[in-house]
Amino acid sequence: MTEKTKLITPRLPRGFEDRTPGEIAAVGVMIDKIKAVYERYGFDPVETPLLELTETLGKFLPDTDRPNAGVFSIQDDDEQWMSLRYDLTAPLARYFAENFETLPKPYRSYRQGYVFRNEKPGPGRFRQFMQFDADTVGAGGPEADAEMCMMMADVMDALGLQGKYVVRVNNRKVLDGVLNAAGVTSDEQKLAVLRAVDKLDKFGTDGVKLLLGAGRKDESGDFTKGAGLTDAQAAVVLDYVAGKPPADNDGVAELAAMQALFTAAGYGPDRIKIDPSVVRGLEYYTGPVFEIELTFKVQNEKGQDVVFGAVGGGGRYDGLVSRFRREPVPATGFSIGVSRLANALKLTGNLDAAEPAGPVVVLVMDKEQMAGYQAMVAELRHAGIRAEMFLGNTKNFGKQVAYADKRNSPIVVIEGSQEREQGILQIKDLIAGKQAAQAITDNAEWKAARPGQFEIKRGDLVSAVRKLLSEQQ
Amino acid sequence: MTEKTKLITPRLPRGFEDRTPGEIAAVGVMIDKIKAVYERYGFDPVETPLLELTETLGKFLPDTDRPNAGVFSIQDDDEQWMSLRYDLTAPLARYFAENFETLPKPYRSYRQGYVFRNEKPGPGRFRQFMQFDADTVGAGGPEADAEMCMMMADVMDALGLQGKYVVRVNNRKVLDGVLNAAGVTSDEQKLAVLRAVDKLDKFGTDGVKLLLGAGRKDESGDFTKGAGLTDAQAAVVLDYVAGKPPADNDGVAELAAMQALFTAAGYGPDRIKIDPSVVRGLEYYTGPVFEIELTFKVQNEKGQDVVFGAVGGGGRYDGLVSRFRREPVPATGFSIGVSRLANALKLTGNLDAAEPAGPVVVLVMDKEQMAGYQAMVAELRHAGIRAEMFLGNTKNFGKQVAYADKRNSPIVVIEGSQEREQGILQIKDLIAGKQAAQAITDNAEWKAARPGQFEIKRGDLVSAVRKLLSEQQ
Repeated sequence: MTEKTKLITPRLPRGFEDRTPGEIAAVGVMIDKIKAVYERYGFDPVETPLLELTETLGKFLPDTDRPNAGVFSIQDDDEQWMSLRYDLTAPLARYFAENFETLPKPYRSYRQGYVFRNEKPGPGRFRQFMQFDADTVGAGGPEADAEMCMMMADVMDALGLQGKYVVRVNNRKVLDGVLNAAGVTSDEQKLAVLRAVDKLDKFGTDGVKLLLGAGRKDESGDFTKGAGLTDAQAAVVLDYVAGKPPADNDGVAELAAMQALFTAAGYGPDRIKIDPSVVRGLEYYTGPVFEIELTFKVQNEKGQDVVFGAVGGGGRYDGLVSRFRREPVPATGFSIGVSRLANALKLTGNLDAAEPAGPVVVLVMDKEQMAGYQAMVAELRHAGIRAEMFLGNTKNFGKQVAYADKRNSPIVVIEGSQEREQGILQIKDLIAGKQAAQAITDNAEWKAARPGQFEIKRGDLVSAVRKLLSEQQ
Repeated sequence: MTEKTKLITPRLPRGFEDRTPGEIAAVGVMIDKIKAVYERYGFDPVETPLLELTETLGKFLPDTDRPNAGVFSIQDDDEQWMSLRYDLTAPLARYFAENFETLPKPYRSYRQGYVFRNEKPGPGRFRQFMQFDADTVGAGGPEADAEMCMMMADVMDALGLQGKYVVRVNNRKVLDGVLNAAGVTSDEQKLAVLRAVDKLDKFGTDGVKLLLGAGRKDESGDFTKGAGLTDAQAAVVLDYVAGKPPADNDGVAELAAMQALFTAAGYGPDRIKIDPSVVRGLEYYTGPVFEIELTFKVQNEKGQDVVFGAVGGGGRYDGLVSRFRREPVPATGFSIGVSRLANALKLTGNLDAAEPAGPVVVLVMDKEQMAGYQAMVAELRHAGIRAEMFLGNTKNFGKQVAYADKRNSPIVVIEGSQEREQGILQIKDLIAGKQAAQAITDNAEWKAARPGQFEIKRGDLVSAVRKLLSEQQ
């Protein structure tokens, strides 16, 4: 094959990545902690497939300003159009509608898995990434939304992020009321206003004012076109941003009800706070919206100190299930960006990186004795000890030891012909060996001392290895 | 939206399925047991994305007679062709070649995840299904293949299937030697011969003889065309099937070496046996091939008793990595069909179905007191108790209790206005209640007894619930 055909370059498409043992283990621990909180709140797992019929998914990309941004779609042999799910909410709406008769109502579910976006990838922006969602379908009151916010706060606590986050809460109806009061009617202008409001944290009131008007030039000279509001229109929005909610607004009442629940359950404003600048996406949400912000500082690409920012969010979406059923079905939920949250935990030192410990390696000193070495490995494994025989090219002893080192092996077992005749084994303690190597500088001294190496009887293999492993702890 | 647009039918594309909490939990337990064996054998996890470049995956569908059978492919915005992985081996070859410089060699990895086939789905045949693979790349000797077989046997033991499985082992070189000796040269005829050999278990020697010749008619009258061998050619193949291996064959020597390793490590023929009828796929394998067969009987669609059959298999594939690199890179591995194995474990009663226990439900007796109920739930959750407030329509008391029943709730907490004035709560033990309900037949008697219901002080909520939960165990 290699002679006839051109070699293929082994590479991934842009925006996709492999995960190493350390990442898999660390994210696994993180997922388990989140899962424990979701279950304590009464949520049950469910899993939907990665592909759905394109028509049932619809196009509701929540976190983007471009509702038509890319979904990966495939036509199968039956000429059905299917799409890779772009979030875990649209499949839930399909699942709930399909199983409406049998599911408990309200239906609390959590779901974890990969989602896909057919977009240009960039730094920290992938085309396959993991989400971990929780949703309550069939509960219309603000107590269901409040519960979501408290659960997000408890998740952050469970991950060890006390004092480093805040769950920020707003209501889409409030924002709509402000846009109405300001007389903003075109979708394009609404979008520009919401984008400006969203920048309050970053640019302050003065920055928002510029973005509501003609536009804003940043320090590097880049110009962002503004929403083009009149001064009178901008004043309405700025009043709101400064803390004056619109009058007679359902959203304001809902926020007040949520605040009462936070207070009663002991969640102070250091953990959950009403914040008029929270916007989230455009389509899709119909009431309360919320996001988890990590408040500690990190450096951005330009070397500036910025807050880490959002690692998840959500809100109420009462319209999604009604694509399938005539009656209204209220729903609320949120989504955690697993990779982004894992990156944050790495920065704060809260990510447990529990890779499996290296295996005990039985070296192959004599190819004719393979069955004997294999038997040793089998003995160790049956005793529950992680172990393997070296399976590569056995001609070079140094390569075998280098392999054991690379695998973080704690112990190497050696049986040459002399040892076999005497019924003994050499045990090499690689951890003590490494420590000793740092202390011994002379090569002759090294050879004489043979640090961390000792003899045992062949019959004592399992007990001697087990003893040494426990001493190494 | 609902008035203007046609309602969409909530459904999945054929060949895809949702997973329930019970299935997720049971498969999770099974996966953890398999993982523990893989890790004990020195294998480390790695995870590759679900999409790869079509050119790097190639088309090597191992378990099918149709090498061009369907892969789902997508062209992205950059006009690159990508495919959903159809197995976990082709992505491993890409990963190993891409990370050749940094990986330990031999490289032992295990991988778990969904794969996709663009084929017509059928009973038990899905277009998305889960595999759990282990492979050793860079080890050319039969000891690496033998280890795979022993690990498969240990996995079956770990799942509680002692005495219900056998790992069957053969060698592609032996089969090639037989085909050569019989003078079978066309690919089509080779395929037909291998298919016939593969049916030894099912139809016995006489059946194989018919399939090697003109063909075989089964009891229902269906006719399967045979390979069309001459009697002399068929005799060579039948000699082989009867246990006479071809002379001077590398594959025979490799099988003997593997058998010596099995014997030395204590794996008898009840667990691992050399079997001339094992064929596996056509492309892809270059030496030893093996499969895990579950030997207990089940009924097929026609109501006949048949052995459950293969739940996994694999072999040596020395050509796959060399698509990327000039030097030869030997590799061996195997794949477990997770869903099929889970079905088998369900039949034998070895699948732990550990769904999360139902939550304590706090009923909403008075909508004005929502914050108070929410505070109770928060107390319970902070004490680590799975709990929730009823979030649905609270007008109907019966619906709230029915919801708690449907969620398998162990305890319901009730606070009406009378209780609130007195500073007490009603605790309903739903488990005792169900048992009592079976004993009490009279409605008046029921109301008088109110089985499993008692009062506590509001301040004792957490301790009383915790006590009752432990009594219910």
